This record gives sequence, C-alpha cells and structure tokens, in this order.
Amino acid sequence: MSLLEDLNWRHAVKAYDPTKKVSEENIQKIIEAARLAPTSSGLQPFKILVVKDQNIKNQLAESALNPDCMRECSHVLIFAAWDRYTAERIDKVYDFTTDERGLPRGRFSSYTDKLKSIYLEQSADENFAHIARQTYISLGMALAQAAELKIDTTPVEGFSNKAVDELLDLKKLGLKSVSLMYVGYADQERDWLTHMKKVRTPLSEFTLEY
Amino acid sequence: MSLLEDLNWRHAVKAYDPTKKVSEENIQKIIEAARLAPTSSGLQPFKILVVKDQNIKNQLAESALNPDCMRECSHVLIFAAWDRYTAERIDKVYDFTTDERGLPRGRFSSYTDKLKSIYLEQSADENFAHIARQTYISLGMALAQAAELKIDTTPVEGFSNKAVDELLDLKKLGLKSVSLMYVGYADQERDWLTHMKKVRTPLSEFTLEY
Repeated sequence: MSLLEDLNWRHAVKAYDPTKKVSEENIQKIIEAARLAPTSSGLQPFKILVVKDQNIKNQLAESALNPDCMRECSHVLIFAAWDRYTAERIDKVYDFTTDERGLPRGRFSSYTDKLKSIYLEQSADENFAHIARQTYISLGMALAQAAELKIDTTPVEGFSNKAVDELLDLKKLGLKSVSLMYVGYADQERDWLTHMKKVRTPLSEFTLEY
Repeated sequence: MSLLEDLNWRHAVKAYDPTKKVSEENIQKIIEAARLAPTSSGLQPFKILVVKDQNIKNQLAESALNPDCMRECSHVLIFAAWDRYTAERIDKVYDFTTDERGLPRGRFSSYTDKLKSIYLEQSADENFAHIARQTYISLGMALAQAAELKIDTTPVEGFSNKAVDELLDLKKLGLKSVSLMYVGYADQERDWLTHMKKVRTPLSEFTLEY
C-alpha cells in the first residue's frame, strides 16, 4: 500500500473494541515514526508518554471529551512538550549530535548561540507556542505509521491539559501535554464514522498556484 | 519501502540542484497527502500555496534564511493558515461535508455551535495559535509523501512571515503564512547534511511508559 492509500484508509475512530490490544512491536513502530519526525533545528523538544495501564487510562478519561475512547482504546500516546527552551536543553541535543557524528563538541556553537539568543529572550509562553507546533509533525508521522499497519487511531485535543499534566506530574518533568493519540482497533458497530465518506477540502480550494 | 525506511532516508536538504525539476504528477501526490491530513474538527483551516515561478521564488528568497535553497529548489510550498475562525468558514466546511455524505445540512449543528461558542469568543491570536498547529500535521504528511517518492525536501520556518504575507497579499485572502517546504532534488556536492549520520533523541529518552 502507498502512503496515499493508507491516508485514505484511516479516519479518526470514535469507538474502540476494548478486547483488542495492539502488539508491543507495532506500538514501537508507531513511536519510531514519531521519533524520526523532523523538528525545528532538530531539537525534538518533546516526549511521548505511552499509557497502557488501565487504571491510568480510566483516570485520564475523567477529563476527556470522549471518555469511552480513552478507556477502551489499547494505548494512549501523550505528546508532552518542553515547557520552554533552555541553554542546557539545547546544548544537550547538540552535544549528543556531535558525539554521534564523531565531531568535536561545539562544532555547531555559532548556530546554537543564535538559537539561544532568540529563544531565551522570549517568554515561556512564546517558547511553548513554537514547541507545541513541532509535536504535530510527529503526531502526523505516528498517525501515518499506524495507518500503514492498519491500526486505528484518533488524534485528540479534546481533553483537559491541566488535568493530564497534574495526574502525571508533568511539571516536575518540565513538560506540558499538547495532544493525545488513541491507538487500538475500532469497534465497527459503534464507530459511527467508519461508514461515512471521507471528506476533505476540494483540491481546487486547497491550493493556489504561483 | 516502508514509511520507517522513507523517514530514515529523508533529511532536511541544505542545497538543491537548480537544473532538476519535480514533475507535476509528483507535486500533486505531495499535495494530496497534505490534503488528506487530519485537522482539529476536520476544519482544514489552511491552504497550500504552490510556487514554481522563478521570479516569485527569487523575491521570496530575499527574506529567507537560506536564500539559495529557496531560489534553487524546484517548488516552494507555503502553508498559509486562516487568520482566524469565523462562523462562515466553519459552516462552509460542514455544509460541504453533509452535502458530500448525502446528509441534511445542519446535521452537525450542535457540534458546530459548540465550535463557534469556543472559537468566536477567543482573540484572533488565540485562534491562529490553534490553527497554525494544524498545518504541521499536514506538513508532516507532505514530507513523508515526498520521501516515499525519493524527492528531497526541507521544512522551513526561517523566513519572514511578514515579507511572504505582503508579497503574496495574503491578508486579502484571510491567510497568514506559517511554514514553508522546499521541494526538489539535492545537490549532493553542496548539501553538507547528505553525508552526515541522522541523529534523533534515543528511544530511552524519547518515551516514558505508564
């Protein structure tokens, strides 16, 4: 199957079969696609929290717009972004990069100095607005990878960031939740979207040519 | 090739061969992947401006961090987002959706009423912060599709949004530029990143399990 066939196949599932679990091998492939996603300056300023524990899913469901999906899917991926850029975080990424490439540390220091001069002058909110955007590239890659494996997903913004951050004590980790991705297998009977035509903006309205 | 192989293959190209152009058929596949990307509530609140005109690329290059890439790549895709949500824009999407599905218009009115009650209460800046995030899912899908076709790309935030918006008079279209994607074929000699190891956050640091 091609990516276009996979993207046509997928939809945001509205009900999961709680008896069907996604294998660890396939979860790891989905995470690997998310990990390979590009991000601004290669900083990868986020983590993915992988939740399969039923008790935690049940607690998370209390603040979700569609709590049944949260409870009944196999895994919940939480895209949790850095609360802000710091010099230490930027240096850590670039020290690792130079080490991996066999280059001297500091090889990219004129670039990282520029990043620091931009980001450290901004407020934490301005930093976070930029950081949060990056997580969506990764969310896209994870959704595409699941579709390739014929695993159902739902990208989710309908939840209380505050409740999730508090439940998992994300502040202590320097993280803030951005979006969720439910992963599992649809309950074909209850997933009302399964049988509806996929609709997207017509191409003629989606692009302008220059 | 699998998606994971494609994502491992790609990197953000730093120099393009100006003599190699991407076929119209392949540009359309890249755009189709972007068009199929999911977005919050299915609103697809953006357009892609497809620039192949050399004069316009040259003008855009004047405000780009890497002007040679802009000038020498085959096509520039500009992800341009709605400047804000409006009742008319939301209704237009849902009227089209119901028409396409053979459902009566207004079938989802309780849902669209809720969307309006949230978004129309927010400032234009708050709207735009949410809208801009959605474009990154689509950017991710477009990058993945290009990789499947072994076409090189660079996702780009290093440009002046103001200059791009003014040059293409985006305000008149109710749009604001968010990111760019250069599309073309790398100049292997000048693309210094071609020969460097791909580096990503180690899996052990990228995920937390619950």
